[in-house]
Amino acid sequence: MGKNGMGRYTVGLDIGGTKILGALLDPEGEVVATVRRSTVHGAEGLVSGAAEAVRDVAASGGVEVTALAGVGLGIPGIVDHRSGTVKHAVNLGVHDDELPLAELLSARVGGVPVVVENDLNVAAVGAAHVLERAADRAGRAERADRAGGGAADGAADGAADGSREHEDLAFLALGTGLASGLVLDGELRRGASGAAGEIGHIPVDPLGPECPCGQRGCLERFASGKALEAAWPARHGKPSPVELFEAARAGDQEAVVVRDRFADAVASAVRLLVLTTDVRHVVLGGGVAQLGTELLDVVQDALREQAKVSAFLGSLRLAERVRLAPTHVPVAAVGAAVLGRRG
Amino acid sequence: MGKNGMGRYTVGLDIGGTKILGALLDPEGEVVATVRRSTVHGAEGLVSGAAEAVRDVAASGGVEVTALAGVGLGIPGIVDHRSGTVKHAVNLGVHDDELPLAELLSARVGGVPVVVENDLNVAAVGAAHVLERAADRAGRAERADRAGGGAADGAADGAADGSREHEDLAFLALGTGLASGLVLDGELRRGASGAAGEIGHIPVDPLGPECPCGQRGCLERFASGKALEAAWPARHGKPSPVELFEAARAGDQEAVVVRDRFADAVASAVRLLVLTTDVRHVVLGGGVAQLGTELLDVVQDALREQAKVSAFLGSLRLAERVRLAPTHVPVAAVGAAVLGRRG
Repeated sequence: MGKNGMGRYTVGLDIGGTKILGALLDPEGEVVATVRRSTVHGAEGLVSGAAEAVRDVAASGGVEVTALAGVGLGIPGIVDHRSGTVKHAVNLGVHDDELPLAELLSARVGGVPVVVENDLNVAAVGAAHVLERAADRAGRAERADRAGGGAADGAADGAADGSREHEDLAFLALGTGLASGLVLDGELRRGASGAAGEIGHIPVDPLGPECPCGQRGCLERFASGKALEAAWPARHGKPSPVELFEAARAGDQEAVVVRDRFADAVASAVRLLVLTTDVRHVVLGGGVAQLGTELLDVVQDALREQAKVSAFLGSLRLAERVRLAPTHVPVAAVGAAVLGRRG
Repeated sequence: MGKNGMGRYTVGLDIGGTKILGALLDPEGEVVATVRRSTVHGAEGLVSGAAEAVRDVAASGGVEVTALAGVGLGIPGIVDHRSGTVKHAVNLGVHDDELPLAELLSARVGGVPVVVENDLNVAAVGAAHVLERAADRAGRAERADRAGGGAADGAADGAADGSREHEDLAFLALGTGLASGLVLDGELRRGASGAAGEIGHIPVDPLGPECPCGQRGCLERFASGKALEAAWPARHGKPSPVELFEAARAGDQEAVVVRDRFADAVASAVRLLVLTTDVRHVVLGGGVAQLGTELLDVVQDALREQAKVSAFLGSLRLAERVRLAPTHVPVAAVGAAVLGRRG
């Protein structure tokens, strides 16, 4: 059967303020091509740029655009996934009251159905998809090993035991701000008003600093890229988190204090997510997570430290639930492509 | 068709430290009988008391026990709903490491399948069930009115529009402690380790009082019956919340301050639940909620007050999402009976 005959390929785009990342997913859910372009601001630039990204990544994978089963978009801003519209995506230069993005893009890609989703939601769906497939592969390899090194069967049978344990997670985005996307029991949780996962604006300190949202002591004021920059402004032209962690590693005691306070705040966000939703995994993503294992290590240390005073917290094994977002694929674009399958 | 021939009647029990409440649900999900007994502590007392409650409530509804499709139990303590076992239900006098409650009770009620669930989870399921049915009835009555006062058709068609909007809620139990149960998109959310909804132990004030859990400034230290009692000890033999609200109503300024601080803490719990799970409704239950509309009023006032400083919070319309748990039926027992249908 030819690729186009399958009709189950989908494309996902993660549209950010500076770049568009795209991924082509094959019918088995494997990423077979990716693309990266600069974002052109404004409604027309956004739609034509997205259309070109779809064509590019489909072509890279040898798939006709018109043969795609669907396209998914992840976009910052207020998204109505039912109507496929976006409101006030100001960092994309879209000031329209309501931009019918799904409809406009669909018209540019031969009528292929387009779904639009919040950027955190696609990231959560993508992380669940990628981690679940990795676990599947590991499981198959292990079973093949046990069977004497024979080839594992090709079916995606990891879900056959009903576990799908990675499809229960929060994607905790440590970007400029702090927010999360939730996949619970395999389902994207949007919430009644699309506000699920907006933990950045939960106050955690009555005496904390004022937040632009109007409240005081919001979690985002302690656990976000912006909070880190305020506490440790970049002095050497690198991103503030990189400079902070370098200084701490070099033994700068002030940097160690700032780093550990930040790690404690991220750990508090993890604790909050688990004590409300009890997600199996919390995946650290966003710009600050580019620090990689160095970040993971200090956050896990902070979680173990918090658990020392509380047997109850200890029983939740929070440190073991945290992991880094996969970096070998554009997770949010993959999530958008997964949602494109359901379009 | 005879009642017993239907085989879709279920019984639910809400087993607390002092009393057992029971409900018989008919095949349409209507409560047709209820029962109330004292709890007998210890494993044997618990099982035989539960068996008698099942027999009593079934008999009240004219249903043979052996004709029941299932029995559901809601119980405080650490419940494993898969195995039907309960651990350390100390306030029921059960100190066994693991009591196979479902199996033991099933043997006493003619082999009818028994499911066991956490008390907060059954309360959330029950509240969703009762509120959804009430909304259904209201919708039918309205349609019947519009149709010129003719009789509405009997089918439970309220869900036909796919809304089921009341099946998305948090049951916020203001009991001795503070915790919640979650029904998200119509599904009970237990979480990876059964800890979903345990918001009482989220720290919200770094300088707050120590919590028995080992942490400091947990939300439960501000928004629970125990917190109220500490702030306003009963002096006239009534429950502390009743005395506090009476004093505040009578103009005692100190009482007004304590009451409003409590309302603000409950409002914070509501805000926290919505900013993580974005549940459509937050239902106030537990002992303190017996205050009724007086409690609802001050919590809604506090939510409006909090929203004044934040357009973001205001957009979430938190005050409109809060309601009181239904009191005309034993909600938790009803929820247990609903889960008994799936046993």
